[in-house]
Amino acid sequence: MAKDKVKKTPRPRAETPRGFRDYFGAEVVERRRMLDAICDVYHAYGFDPLESSAVETVEALGKYLPDVDRPNEGVFAWQDDDESWLALRYDLTAPLARVFAQHRLSLPTPYRRYAVGPVWRNEKPGPGRYRQFYQCDADTVGTQTVAADAEICMMLADAFEAIGISRDDVIVRVNNRKVLNGVMEEIGVLDPSDPGIRAHERGIVMRAIDKLDRLGEDGVRALLGKGRLDESGDFTKGAGLSADQAEIVMGFVAARRDTGAATCARLCELVGNSATGAEGVVELETIAELMEAQGYASRAIIDPSVVRGLGYYTGPVFEAELTFEIVDEDGHRRQFGSVAGGGRYDDLVKRFTGQAVPATGISVGVDRLLAALRAIGRAGGAEASGPVVILVMDRDRMADYQTMCGELRRAGIRAEVFLGGGNMARQLKYADKRNAPVAIIEGGDERAAGVVQLKDLDLGARLSSEIASREEWREQPAQQTVARTDLVPQLRAMLARAEARGPAVARDGNGAA
Amino acid sequence: MAKDKVKKTPRPRAETPRGFRDYFGAEVVERRRMLDAICDVYHAYGFDPLESSAVETVEALGKYLPDVDRPNEGVFAWQDDDESWLALRYDLTAPLARVFAQHRLSLPTPYRRYAVGPVWRNEKPGPGRYRQFYQCDADTVGTQTVAADAEICMMLADAFEAIGISRDDVIVRVNNRKVLNGVMEEIGVLDPSDPGIRAHERGIVMRAIDKLDRLGEDGVRALLGKGRLDESGDFTKGAGLSADQAEIVMGFVAARRDTGAATCARLCELVGNSATGAEGVVELETIAELMEAQGYASRAIIDPSVVRGLGYYTGPVFEAELTFEIVDEDGHRRQFGSVAGGGRYDDLVKRFTGQAVPATGISVGVDRLLAALRAIGRAGGAEASGPVVILVMDRDRMADYQTMCGELRRAGIRAEVFLGGGNMARQLKYADKRNAPVAIIEGGDERAAGVVQLKDLDLGARLSSEIASREEWREQPAQQTVARTDLVPQLRAMLARAEARGPAVARDGNGAA
Repeated sequence: MAKDKVKKTPRPRAETPRGFRDYFGAEVVERRRMLDAICDVYHAYGFDPLESSAVETVEALGKYLPDVDRPNEGVFAWQDDDESWLALRYDLTAPLARVFAQHRLSLPTPYRRYAVGPVWRNEKPGPGRYRQFYQCDADTVGTQTVAADAEICMMLADAFEAIGISRDDVIVRVNNRKVLNGVMEEIGVLDPSDPGIRAHERGIVMRAIDKLDRLGEDGVRALLGKGRLDESGDFTKGAGLSADQAEIVMGFVAARRDTGAATCARLCELVGNSATGAEGVVELETIAELMEAQGYASRAIIDPSVVRGLGYYTGPVFEAELTFEIVDEDGHRRQFGSVAGGGRYDDLVKRFTGQAVPATGISVGVDRLLAALRAIGRAGGAEASGPVVILVMDRDRMADYQTMCGELRRAGIRAEVFLGGGNMARQLKYADKRNAPVAIIEGGDERAAGVVQLKDLDLGARLSSEIASREEWREQPAQQTVARTDLVPQLRAMLARAEARGPAVARDGNGAA
Repeated sequence: MAKDKVKKTPRPRAETPRGFRDYFGAEVVERRRMLDAICDVYHAYGFDPLESSAVETVEALGKYLPDVDRPNEGVFAWQDDDESWLALRYDLTAPLARVFAQHRLSLPTPYRRYAVGPVWRNEKPGPGRYRQFYQCDADTVGTQTVAADAEICMMLADAFEAIGISRDDVIVRVNNRKVLNGVMEEIGVLDPSDPGIRAHERGIVMRAIDKLDRLGEDGVRALLGKGRLDESGDFTKGAGLSADQAEIVMGFVAARRDTGAATCARLCELVGNSATGAEGVVELETIAELMEAQGYASRAIIDPSVVRGLGYYTGPVFEAELTFEIVDEDGHRRQFGSVAGGGRYDDLVKRFTGQAVPATGISVGVDRLLAALRAIGRAGGAEASGPVVILVMDRDRMADYQTMCGELRRAGIRAEVFLGGGNMARQLKYADKRNAPVAIIEGGDERAAGVVQLKDLDLGARLSSEIASREEWREQPAQQTVARTDLVPQLRAMLARAEARGPAVARDGNGAA
């Protein structure tokens, strides 16, 4: 009878929405550890944490405004009960501008803040491209001095070192939009008294420079001129510069010399009579001097080939690259590449207050940086292995197993009692799935004899994998009977041996696909 | 000319959306520290971190379904490009059910996970009531054994200890819905063969018990019977139980005895012939035994007065209370009260898969727990004070100040060079606003003499506040000239004196209101 009343509704699908994903176990631990190390550096530099709300008014976010029906320009937005439009933040810079404008009377100036958290983009998802991802930003708001820009570049270099990237493997490149604008003035595509004219051509120039890595000099030169025909036969219209004009731009891109001072001297020639350009060169000189004085000359350099895509930068721009090589999906060796970028933006707060508030900052691409750490084996995955698992050989003795487990935890060993159902084989399978380094077995016989069995699952996994066969730790005991009273020291010794063998062999995985 | 083209648009308002807020500096640090300590305990217990996406399909979240136009039943929801409805998660349990259903073939069973993060509720905001707030959950999915419930209660007790709450100040109460259902059967308001009948009355009974703290015994008794007239004259309809029936329910609520065993014996009487009730009592007995065996008897008890509001609990329910007294807004002393709750829910995964998957878990009210830590001075606010600030007396010597600053950071001292504009008074005002413990001054004279001035801003703030006047550290030097070569040890000594004085005096604040 009761059953008849139950309305049959189809079961909901257990799926993350399109373009979203979950992060499990070691992935979460590794990211947390990396971000903590970065934030510790930011904190030591006097930066304060800020956690703004994930939801902003569309009005405050700006740029992406809702159309009549619904906004779909890159943000997730919806209408609140009071008809106002709300949206998930798409980066951490727009919220910072809102926060500073809102709280400027109570916040210190300059306001140095760091922020870590997810941002959301309503974009078409693709492989490795998600609609929710992490950003980690540091910004200094309210000061014009380029000492703030230099500080951010040095702080970033320190952050890389703190997470285990060696000084030789990272380079922070610094350029200045003002210098590029000076060059544009010099070749006649920028009139400071009317910046609207030929803005379109300047955009093409900027994007062309940004593609130097991919297209090479000839490709960029083509885009500066009439345009470029790619391999597929598609034609991209160029900026229409003359050969002489293009030559000057290419000279700018290639202006990097051995020292910051030499690069600045070359830039000085290129900007000619442009006041903006000259100002930009002086700023770069100051930045180079400050970074050299603190011993960062080899890690942070002036490089005119850095442009940065975003339109809102107004002065110095930065980009951090990892220079070690990896093998990409196509089997080619290539440099790891860019993992952070930023620059000076003086107009974001002005939107709210009408007063220009100078600001500069850096944003770390968290997922790419974590991928880099994994590539060089510094993400800490080994330590992120599973807990020691105590098998339950006798269900009525749960309290004893929990007591044993408490003993291990108090000794600082991550441990758990198996709480599922099933025989020993099933329990060991569970322990493998957890990437447990060791399983502990105490059945009735062991109990009577005052001993426990320690099963080295890490070693077991190696012995059954090919790479292990030639190794000398083949002689190590994969299972040991130890006195119950010696459990902690014997277990510690076994864990130490496992750690000495290096990162655990992948077993059934300790999380989901 | 160019100006004419600029369209005058009104400036956006710099405001968080209604019901949202930002968190600054020490607030973020304190919360992070508390959550890290809790998660370390969860991790040591073998629980794995999970970070699910903030956005779920409305279908997967369940419960709140969108109406024709737009959903507004407590969640923030919107339509995706493909017409499906998306929403921000409103808790961490519904996403866990989705994750487990989605990844059940690759996840270990039991799956123990912890999760920390913001959740969103589309509710009317009020004082201290925000539409985005943190939750911190731990759950064990896929096992029926109440050893998992006992483990979670003990782990919670350990977590409280780890964040600095003494064992005497916390109590974890455990009850069992099955026992209450047994009592309901016994008084004839629950027919196990047709649970739909009188479900409404049972809901009233459950909510009445939940209000025992606030309404007292008489109030609850009134709600069990015909109903209750409150002070304002409003009448709340009751469950309509007879005096005898109500007496049995009240007996259940008051069934707590000195030991878990004694309480269970009393409950056994109350559930009479109900099979469900008897099962519930056995479960509570097991939980009590396991907790006593691990030495938690004084901190984790069986208490039948705990009901928990949520409908989805099916077995043991838990609630953690802090028992120390605070003075509330009305000047009354009262116990701090509930800071965490949870229980067993066996049907959440079933929604997706059709198969019942037993699960149990706990959720910590992060903001309330942090408020509790602040109330007892254990939130770590003192250490969360500002950086040492190096004043810029000579702009041309920025590199020297940065060198000095680097020296301090390498010595583990949080420090920064002032990067704003303004004279010494303005720089000191900034340092105060940052809650800087010390300011360092090195002008031309100091430089020539090889010395620096250390200004103890913490002491300065105390001396100018009344509470300081009688203290002996009035004799401590508020400003000291030290040799430049002695900077680090002398600064360390000054910082140690400041720390010894206890939490910093509130100055201009180190964040926004």
